[in-house]
Amino acid sequence: MSNPSVVEYVVQRLAALGIEHVFGVPGDYAFPFDDAIESSAAVTWVADANELNAAYAADGYARIRGAAIMCTTYAVGELSALNGVMGSKAEHLPVFHLVGQPSTRLQRGHRIVHHSFGDRVFGNFQPSSWVSACAYTNLTPENTVAEMERVIAEALANRQPAYIAVAEDYAYLPVQGEPVAGIPLSDVPPRPSDPHALDEAVDALLKRLKSAKHPVVLAAYTVGRYGLQQGLEKFLAASGLPYATTPMDKAVISESHPQFLGMYSGPKSGDGVRETVEGADLVLNLGGVVFSDINTMFYMDAIDPACMVTVWPDYVEVGDTTFSPLSMADVLRRLAEATPKFATPAISSPVAPVVTGDTDDLISSASFYSRLHGFLRPRDIVVAETGMCTGCMAAMHLPDGAAFHNQSLWASIGWATGAALGTSLADPRRRTVLVTGDGAHQMTANEIGAMGRAGVKPVIFVLNNGMYGLEEILSQHEGHDYDRLAPWEYHLLPKALGCKDWFTARVTTNAELDAALTRAGQQNDASYIEVVLQHADIGPSLPRSLTNRIYETT
Amino acid sequence: MSNPSVVEYVVQRLAALGIEHVFGVPGDYAFPFDDAIESSAAVTWVADANELNAAYAADGYARIRGAAIMCTTYAVGELSALNGVMGSKAEHLPVFHLVGQPSTRLQRGHRIVHHSFGDRVFGNFQPSSWVSACAYTNLTPENTVAEMERVIAEALANRQPAYIAVAEDYAYLPVQGEPVAGIPLSDVPPRPSDPHALDEAVDALLKRLKSAKHPVVLAAYTVGRYGLQQGLEKFLAASGLPYATTPMDKAVISESHPQFLGMYSGPKSGDGVRETVEGADLVLNLGGVVFSDINTMFYMDAIDPACMVTVWPDYVEVGDTTFSPLSMADVLRRLAEATPKFATPAISSPVAPVVTGDTDDLISSASFYSRLHGFLRPRDIVVAETGMCTGCMAAMHLPDGAAFHNQSLWASIGWATGAALGTSLADPRRRTVLVTGDGAHQMTANEIGAMGRAGVKPVIFVLNNGMYGLEEILSQHEGHDYDRLAPWEYHLLPKALGCKDWFTARVTTNAELDAALTRAGQQNDASYIEVVLQHADIGPSLPRSLTNRIYETT
Repeated sequence: MSNPSVVEYVVQRLAALGIEHVFGVPGDYAFPFDDAIESSAAVTWVADANELNAAYAADGYARIRGAAIMCTTYAVGELSALNGVMGSKAEHLPVFHLVGQPSTRLQRGHRIVHHSFGDRVFGNFQPSSWVSACAYTNLTPENTVAEMERVIAEALANRQPAYIAVAEDYAYLPVQGEPVAGIPLSDVPPRPSDPHALDEAVDALLKRLKSAKHPVVLAAYTVGRYGLQQGLEKFLAASGLPYATTPMDKAVISESHPQFLGMYSGPKSGDGVRETVEGADLVLNLGGVVFSDINTMFYMDAIDPACMVTVWPDYVEVGDTTFSPLSMADVLRRLAEATPKFATPAISSPVAPVVTGDTDDLISSASFYSRLHGFLRPRDIVVAETGMCTGCMAAMHLPDGAAFHNQSLWASIGWATGAALGTSLADPRRRTVLVTGDGAHQMTANEIGAMGRAGVKPVIFVLNNGMYGLEEILSQHEGHDYDRLAPWEYHLLPKALGCKDWFTARVTTNAELDAALTRAGQQNDASYIEVVLQHADIGPSLPRSLTNRIYETT
Repeated sequence: MSNPSVVEYVVQRLAALGIEHVFGVPGDYAFPFDDAIESSAAVTWVADANELNAAYAADGYARIRGAAIMCTTYAVGELSALNGVMGSKAEHLPVFHLVGQPSTRLQRGHRIVHHSFGDRVFGNFQPSSWVSACAYTNLTPENTVAEMERVIAEALANRQPAYIAVAEDYAYLPVQGEPVAGIPLSDVPPRPSDPHALDEAVDALLKRLKSAKHPVVLAAYTVGRYGLQQGLEKFLAASGLPYATTPMDKAVISESHPQFLGMYSGPKSGDGVRETVEGADLVLNLGGVVFSDINTMFYMDAIDPACMVTVWPDYVEVGDTTFSPLSMADVLRRLAEATPKFATPAISSPVAPVVTGDTDDLISSASFYSRLHGFLRPRDIVVAETGMCTGCMAAMHLPDGAAFHNQSLWASIGWATGAALGTSLADPRRRTVLVTGDGAHQMTANEIGAMGRAGVKPVIFVLNNGMYGLEEILSQHEGHDYDRLAPWEYHLLPKALGCKDWFTARVTTNAELDAALTRAGQQNDASYIEVVLQHADIGPSLPRSLTNRIYETT
């Protein structure tokens, strides 16, 4: 049997990781990839409304499945996707970005082609895409087998995107050498640790643990990215230590875990969590929490650096010493084997929020979020848009096994709508619940049509307050014309975008919201609920001291 | 009176060119620009649904007004806009792209900020935007006055975008030095020619003209970009020469001009045009026609290079000799003064297309375009999407003074919907007529909401054949699943997107189309007409010899 073509090989090698969908927009220059995807039995093409949406969808898919594939065309396609792929790099998601290039016939003939500056130059745009990837390659029949192993290994080691390009004429040629069959992502071993560095790192960590009186764990989102939830759970069981999560790390393992303290985010932390974390004599930072502006209420975290040790995905920091190269998998395993056992402090059971707002009242942020809490189920995948949605949901205690995805670091609004398509396809047995604001939703709402076509069944809440809410807070005074939005009738969108048999509702009172929640909760169909808030209801107000702080630090 | 702040100065200096609108999406880091725009009496903020749409709208605006301003935030905003700004670079449109940067307090403190990789690095993303500009700057209070003169001069000399960034804390400080008042764009003189090079170039051109028996002119789109339509008309009057335009150059001056031959595009040229152009003993290429794949039916142009001389915007090519630096304005003026006068050959009057399709028939591409011709009026601004729309309209003879804008070179689908907002705002006295395909429209249809909010009144035709039509041709065989589109109900969009008082219709028969055209033509309101074609009706079929040619050359 002859070898597969370059594009066929790329698709089958990536599919062997367990990736079953490809997000993208078709286009000439990329037709070889498009054709290989369409003719592959291993993957299904998902038609996104545009390339940025495709990147967001791939990002969401990778959050659940561990990796994703997207495909765009030269220049216009890859550039439109760029912001989304950059976000996957920032938030550590391995998205394999396939890009078709003009044939070498055109390149060597110095032809003027469409999707160019008309300058006969073909290298203008790739460098921008390279910034969005941790590894990139231009494939030829000779290098494809080796290069695919290299970029897959890099993408998985870093949990970041890889950029894979091929010229249209090379794309159809058979690969040379021995094709690699590949194995599922969950079976791919971590990059090996240096044995000596591993011993030293574990010794240093254990020394700190053994001398600590009341240590605490911060569990970072990377535990989920690298699929090390069980490793974390084993360490927690062996050590008995309580743990907290920042908003970016929320629900990295089930929030029903008996050692879960709650949210740590400076002054917005859960009850008692700030005192426990900032008062600990050792903070074991497992995975590398991102102490960014948004994640810390604008640098209002106050953990004594001398008290924190950090297990990064591929190195360990204890005091001034860095131990490397290591894999977090090995460190967690060794720690679980040797940790002293601490008495777990008493942790008060989470109290469900009191449902506020009378049924006849107009919906407020407070009445919505208190009802949303009761709507969520175990193992839901909650996708929360950047902005007040995440701000209001970060402290919400989630049901057992529910996942929470937001974009705390990259924070590109519009992401959540696209990502929800990705999470829905990634695991159709779990319910995706999307909570987004109107300003963000307007950016990518055309993806609702892609959801309808793909047949996914998310539950979507669009909070309509007529404005970019978070921006009104950040910009320090109210009433900006530039924060006002076009007055969409959101509930009409699913029908306009071709979604068949979707439950849609526009709710203005708590009674209407209750009815819609009941309906959406009882049926297993896609639901799209426009939640009308009062104009400029942007959720719980923040004290002026805090908003001044935001201003001073930005 | 104290000097304006950096951001106030940027806005007032650009507004002095005659730019009255700013397209964009607000965002922290860019709030100083947003605030300066909101408080300026000279410009109006236009809220786009997302940044790519904003870039497309600015591109359309610059096509009519000569220049445009857009504003986005750091990283996520500028990256989302990137493909659109690249298109403005490719097609020579000066768009001033204002981008807010994190404050130097954050940069110098090496803080981890949102919209970053979390790596404390602030220079990751600007280089990508620099590729999209012909000039770029990071402003400080000290350099702002001089830098604005530099980037404005470069942007206008090249008719390409300029990238203007400022850190949030520098933004509010007063500019130093003497502010420049600025003058309207139409009064800005061209960059001066080298007098000696100008004499030599004009001599060389005249020598070729004087020895030619039957010369012909190709008039390029750049004549419009540089506002030199009158210069071209004077030369045509003085020389008597006939001229043709390629699809990219269509209607650069009125197609009612008595010396207009029609379209030149290889085998798709208008009647007799190919013979005239390819049979000429001198082709005077005024402005620099782009002989790209799409513009030449995939390199099927056949002009003898020895017979062509080219007046580029800033240099002249005659044979192997390049004369530089020059401005096209000077060359056109000098040629008009000294050209020999030729007898204009007889040019047959354009024949209006026969309206095809019985009223009871379902609409076909042929019946639609033959009716569209009769719908167009003098001075309409026609915005045609890349794909079959442009392919079917390129040869259509337009009414007196009607403009035609497409994106033949950059060819990023979705552009036209955004651009139509820009052209509508740029000259509300003229009617914008948008013709787009369903696949392209899905990419940027959320911008319809921005149109409604801005109160513009375009007439929009969305051709619904259920697929990416051009791609079915380019990909060489039919029935690709990846070319199928989500089944939107396009006519429901304006209402869903908050457009008040729009005329909307979905038409399936020629009688319904006729009625909608009559209604849209009689009233001066915004109209959105979904034209339902048969599935996969992609317009006039191309002979297989031609599609094979496309395949071989791509």
